Amino acid sequence: MATAADPREQIIRGLEDVLVCESSVSDVDGINGVLTYRGYNIFDLAEKASFEEVSYLLLYGNRPTTVELKDFTAKLVAARAIPKAVIEAIKTLPHDAHPMAAMEVAVAALGCTDKTANTITVENDLTIGTQLISQLATITAAVWRIRSGKDPVAPDSSLSHAANFMYMMTGEKPTAEIAKMMDVALTLHADHEVPASTFAAMVVSSSLTDMYSSITAAIGSLKGSLHGGANENALRNVEKIGSPTNVTAYMDDVVANKKKVPGVGHRVYKVIDPRATILKKYAEQVSAQSNKLKNDFLTACELEKQATAVFGAKGLYPNVDFYSGILYHGMGISTEMFTPIFAVARITGWVSRLVEFLPQNRIFRPRALYTGKTEQKWS
Amino acid sequence: MATAADPREQIIRGLEDVLVCESSVSDVDGINGVLTYRGYNIFDLAEKASFEEVSYLLLYGNRPTTVELKDFTAKLVAARAIPKAVIEAIKTLPHDAHPMAAMEVAVAALGCTDKTANTITVENDLTIGTQLISQLATITAAVWRIRSGKDPVAPDSSLSHAANFMYMMTGEKPTAEIAKMMDVALTLHADHEVPASTFAAMVVSSSLTDMYSSITAAIGSLKGSLHGGANENALRNVEKIGSPTNVTAYMDDVVANKKKVPGVGHRVYKVIDPRATILKKYAEQVSAQSNKLKNDFLTACELEKQATAVFGAKGLYPNVDFYSGILYHGMGISTEMFTPIFAVARITGWVSRLVEFLPQNRIFRPRALYTGKTEQKWS
Repeated sequence: MATAADPREQIIRGLEDVLVCESSVSDVDGINGVLTYRGYNIFDLAEKASFEEVSYLLLYGNRPTTVELKDFTAKLVAARAIPKAVIEAIKTLPHDAHPMAAMEVAVAALGCTDKTANTITVENDLTIGTQLISQLATITAAVWRIRSGKDPVAPDSSLSHAANFMYMMTGEKPTAEIAKMMDVALTLHADHEVPASTFAAMVVSSSLTDMYSSITAAIGSLKGSLHGGANENALRNVEKIGSPTNVTAYMDDVVANKKKVPGVGHRVYKVIDPRATILKKYAEQVSAQSNKLKNDFLTACELEKQATAVFGAKGLYPNVDFYSGILYHGMGISTEMFTPIFAVARITGWVSRLVEFLPQNRIFRPRALYTGKTEQKWS
Repeated sequence: MATAADPREQIIRGLEDVLVCESSVSDVDGINGVLTYRGYNIFDLAEKASFEEVSYLLLYGNRPTTVELKDFTAKLVAARAIPKAVIEAIKTLPHDAHPMAAMEVAVAALGCTDKTANTITVENDLTIGTQLISQLATITAAVWRIRSGKDPVAPDSSLSHAANFMYMMTGEKPTAEIAKMMDVALTLHADHEVPASTFAAMVVSSSLTDMYSSITAAIGSLKGSLHGGANENALRNVEKIGSPTNVTAYMDDVVANKKKVPGVGHRVYKVIDPRATILKKYAEQVSAQSNKLKNDFLTACELEKQATAVFGAKGLYPNVDFYSGILYHGMGISTEMFTPIFAVARITGWVSRLVEFLPQNRIFRPRALYTGKTEQKWS
């Protein structure tokens, strides 16, 4: 039992509220529910900017000029194709492995093919990072195709990053509407300060290892059920509830048995996550196409309403995971690809923060409080 | 320029002195230069315990009984062979890639072949972790053989873990003396509280992802020049100095130009690292076999003496990396394999700490201090 003098009280669990770096990439105002990238409100960016523009903005700190955007887009397009060895590595893996685990293999293997991998400078990190933003979409689509028993689809250089990603996954060019939805989803998930995956990338990188190792670690972290896996759980929960009329009984059980509602609550946001608001709009739009999707969307809306009535006073509101699954289902994307898509978006934030952290780098080396035995003798 | 009210002063760079968990695995007393595993002094263990016994001790918290050790050793031996798909994955990689990067690919690929990977319980973590302690040695030896253009050597179940590892690397059964040196090296590197690689594994694991992802991240972190790569630098520095008579001129340059001496100084130890003391003894022993090795050893001894005279007052003394490279060279091991061997030892600590942390798990989610632009408009 902890007492006032108990050193265990000095442990900062999960590093809650600990500042680990300074940053100008993105800012999360959890009290007011505002997310900005380099000072631009996410509502503005989701509506008006492309994922390519957002990526440049996050990496370089300023909105690209027309020339800068053209050059940056050309670099992304040029990097889309991945070495055959990486495709072969994915093909050797069991198809029922977690897609994120296959992506870890592929990114680590990609690193083995890059002779510049161990040149640790801001300039080289930007070069590799830009390529990786492009290549992770190709890797993810290839993982999906191969595990579905299909051949990977070669990238189409005439398409935007978001449209090409949908094309490489499905083999069909998406409508402008679907391409826009993917672009918005990627933009909204591109960065979010220092969650576990971003922090994992920073901790790995802080020994001055290569960027592929850091991104592999971030993918491994995002894979977990408490992080990227949360959107799958949110959707499954809505599907399990089944209809808006079942929400009251579900919430009665939640309250009576002190359960959590998947997709509700966030470590930083104490009001509604602004990304949820934007995703809700697109989820509604795409859900109009079938009764099943419409039912899921309306169930989620009713759940939001009742959960907010119960938990809102405690600062627990829908987060980004609450509506993203419904949107992705509406776009024809399988549940197991939700977390991989999160990675395809978040790699922009991972790279931007690794590049930003390098000049202020200090290797992470916290302490553990020793509470074990002492004075043992091995005779 | 930071002022007293500057919020940047609240940033805890590298998380220095921050307690992130409680632990009874190992304790580093940096003031007195004492390292204990589960309360047993490292001097005792290096002399009297095998790496198998040390692994059991670190994983389970107590010294194994005869029956427990037999059972645990049998599990390690049974796990030595790795799936052919993992060997094939290593073979597809360019042979000049960093061996640690190839090990990341192999461990992630191994995870893809384990259908229990996503069962996150203490019991399953212990099962997977025990297998991984065994399999990482096989993977590391296979990476070395394949990059040297040779076929991997199948494990020999009649040998101890350390002897079998040497056998799988060289294709020849080691002498009892060399096997003991490898056993001691593995024991001394098995755990060391929360350096970056261990912390990386904990951060990745904290989202409740699978153990293979966490270990892959730890390998990626250990790869960096500020962490596992340091022993390579320490040896290269000694070789560059060339002889004991050149040490004075080298140290004059270090002092005049405020340089660091590779292998000297440690974030936690303020006296000599006890592991350096033990490794020095074995390095001396093995260096007797050739003039080149003897010269390197004597150069290191003179460097220790002069560096201690200059930096000792500042609390900077030789660390574990100072003599380990000289020992490994004396054992016939190539410089590029120093960090991989570190991983083969440290995996025991990584697994022990992941298993220990799971019941007290809280996802890591620190904060960044936002110092960027605000109120930008994207029109």
